[in-house]
Amino acid sequence: MNEAIKQAIYAFNNNEVPIGGILIDSKTKEIIHRSHNKVNKEKNAMYHCEIDLIMHSCKALSRKYLHDTIMFVTLEPCLMCASAVSEVHIDKLYFGAYDNKNGGIENFKFQSKREHAFKTEIYGGIMENDCKTLIENFFKKLR
Amino acid sequence: MNEAIKQAIYAFNNNEVPIGGILIDSKTKEIIHRSHNKVNKEKNAMYHCEIDLIMHSCKALSRKYLHDTIMFVTLEPCLMCASAVSEVHIDKLYFGAYDNKNGGIENFKFQSKREHAFKTEIYGGIMENDCKTLIENFFKKLR
Repeated sequence: MNEAIKQAIYAFNNNEVPIGGILIDSKTKEIIHRSHNKVNKEKNAMYHCEIDLIMHSCKALSRKYLHDTIMFVTLEPCLMCASAVSEVHIDKLYFGAYDNKNGGIENFKFQSKREHAFKTEIYGGIMENDCKTLIENFFKKLR
Repeated sequence: MNEAIKQAIYAFNNNEVPIGGILIDSKTKEIIHRSHNKVNKEKNAMYHCEIDLIMHSCKALSRKYLHDTIMFVTLEPCLMCASAVSEVHIDKLYFGAYDNKNGGIENFKFQSKREHAFKTEIYGGIMENDCKTLIENFFKKLR
């Protein structure tokens, strides 16, 4: 999660909402890709950190699915991102701060009860305060 | 929807699950982008037709949000795609066949009751039989 936080700080310094993440190989523990929220840079409101991690990792590994990988991300994914993580079969997802406004984990878990859905294991609240403080400071700066 | 079906036929002939779509400018009625499911071509399980339409259209228009656009797609979007369509503020979505297995509209509507979510208007069953037959024929061919 420290590596994900570094990415979030990078986003902060580049005027993006500071959300960072990494994707690691669950066997070798090596980092496959580091990324951060790029909505402003890419001029695309769906370019969340998780989407960029998936797009780059599929390309880098030339694989349709990302089995045997683990994602760390500093904020609870929205419903789109939680669904994307399941769609590409990422095994586990650890997130930092909870997002009471846009967080999609609860609704995603409801959806993934459906028989066919790939069930990513999800754990929240990892280094929660560090992740949360970054985002709070960003919005304080904006106001 | 005829244009979307043409894209689905193109996907069919290129060994992709035949789902096609277009994004149009709601004011001029011009087509901004045509696309189809590219999961195999892009080697990326999240490269659904809707995701490609959004990625290309944001880039082409250099806009973070896709207000004043309408999406036509031959199959009911999954939860990821329905959420992505809302995330980029597409005004209206018309889809063809219902997808009882992976369709995410019902669950998405539940989510979008949340106060902050952008509420894309959604209409299903447009040229349903044509859209459905294409997909059924594709899976018959595979078996």
